[in-house]
Amino acid sequence: MQRLKQQIEFINELDKLKSVFRRSLLISGERYENSAEHSWHFALMAVVLAEHYPERDKLDMLRVLKMALLHDTAEIYAGDTYCYDEQAVEGQEEREWKAATKLFSMLPADQQAELFELWHDFEKNESHDAHFARVIDRLNPFLLNYYSGGITWKKNGIRISQVYKRMAEIKTACPSLWPFVMSLLDSAISQGWIIDDRDKL
Amino acid sequence: MQRLKQQIEFINELDKLKSVFRRSLLISGERYENSAEHSWHFALMAVVLAEHYPERDKLDMLRVLKMALLHDTAEIYAGDTYCYDEQAVEGQEEREWKAATKLFSMLPADQQAELFELWHDFEKNESHDAHFARVIDRLNPFLLNYYSGGITWKKNGIRISQVYKRMAEIKTACPSLWPFVMSLLDSAISQGWIIDDRDKL
Repeated sequence: MQRLKQQIEFINELDKLKSVFRRSLLISGERYENSAEHSWHFALMAVVLAEHYPERDKLDMLRVLKMALLHDTAEIYAGDTYCYDEQAVEGQEEREWKAATKLFSMLPADQQAELFELWHDFEKNESHDAHFARVIDRLNPFLLNYYSGGITWKKNGIRISQVYKRMAEIKTACPSLWPFVMSLLDSAISQGWIIDDRDKL
Repeated sequence: MQRLKQQIEFINELDKLKSVFRRSLLISGERYENSAEHSWHFALMAVVLAEHYPERDKLDMLRVLKMALLHDTAEIYAGDTYCYDEQAVEGQEEREWKAATKLFSMLPADQQAELFELWHDFEKNESHDAHFARVIDRLNPFLLNYYSGGITWKKNGIRISQVYKRMAEIKTACPSLWPFVMSLLDSAISQGWIIDDRDKL
């Protein structure tokens, strides 16, 4: 019963991720997305897009889905960090490490170890599972930002050099998705949604 | 490219589940939960609680997680049906079947078949994966309703006979969780959050 009690307390704590808001709008534009629903979308995107990973047979999809579900849970204590806010990104790693340690320590030791290892693998990007999961984590807000009309890019004065840098993991880990990403990027630039600073690349 | 285009359109359509609201409040009580974040919570609960399923070694956790992620997606077209609204429950199965068929038909045929099969297995409750997934789908709103202070039970005049009926799948499929569920139920009754009609059971 003690073990179940710990698990239920952890489950209740997870509920708080539904109140951590990101900088992406829903495609409808009606509100910002929270990190819990983002994680759900990310996980289902991984199911649908796995075939595009060049070494598909090396993916352990159960690990990928667990990573998707867990990857943002440290935000319960550390908050969401906007990827284009250079000041906020400073110290993000340490903040999130502490937060993940605190969160997973609510669980029995064996589960704490398993979940921390998955969370950490995603952060460190050292396995095929992590490479692929990170591609999807990059692609998800890119789709939302594009299909909601580029509002958040415009609002935050985002430059193409920043987006290129952010999206580089897709080009490296999943090159077959890159032409599609580029086609949306070109469209976003031509519509004035992203500032064109390609001369500085 | 045509295949990827179909997959991206499906992924964009999924975004709409974030705007389907349920009858459970977040534990904080600040707002109602939507079906996308519910599905995320459900999936992580399944990861943490799998050991309580009596035939744990028969569970395919990848299928369970995919079910968790997919189980409510038909609500994008069919809407959320409140489980205690007998009139709304009438016709729910047909509505959701049509909705799932419409949604998954956006995908290439092989993926359409895989996802529909998973969705359908959950509905029909014919595998261990579905038995366990449905336990978690019952337990999740029960926890939210209890730990948010029974507000939605009180608001909707819910009776213990209704909750017993709804929770019966937990008792059958995961008996080791039942004493815990009963302890919360007893507490909810003693606090007047659920109407005590046990004399009619």
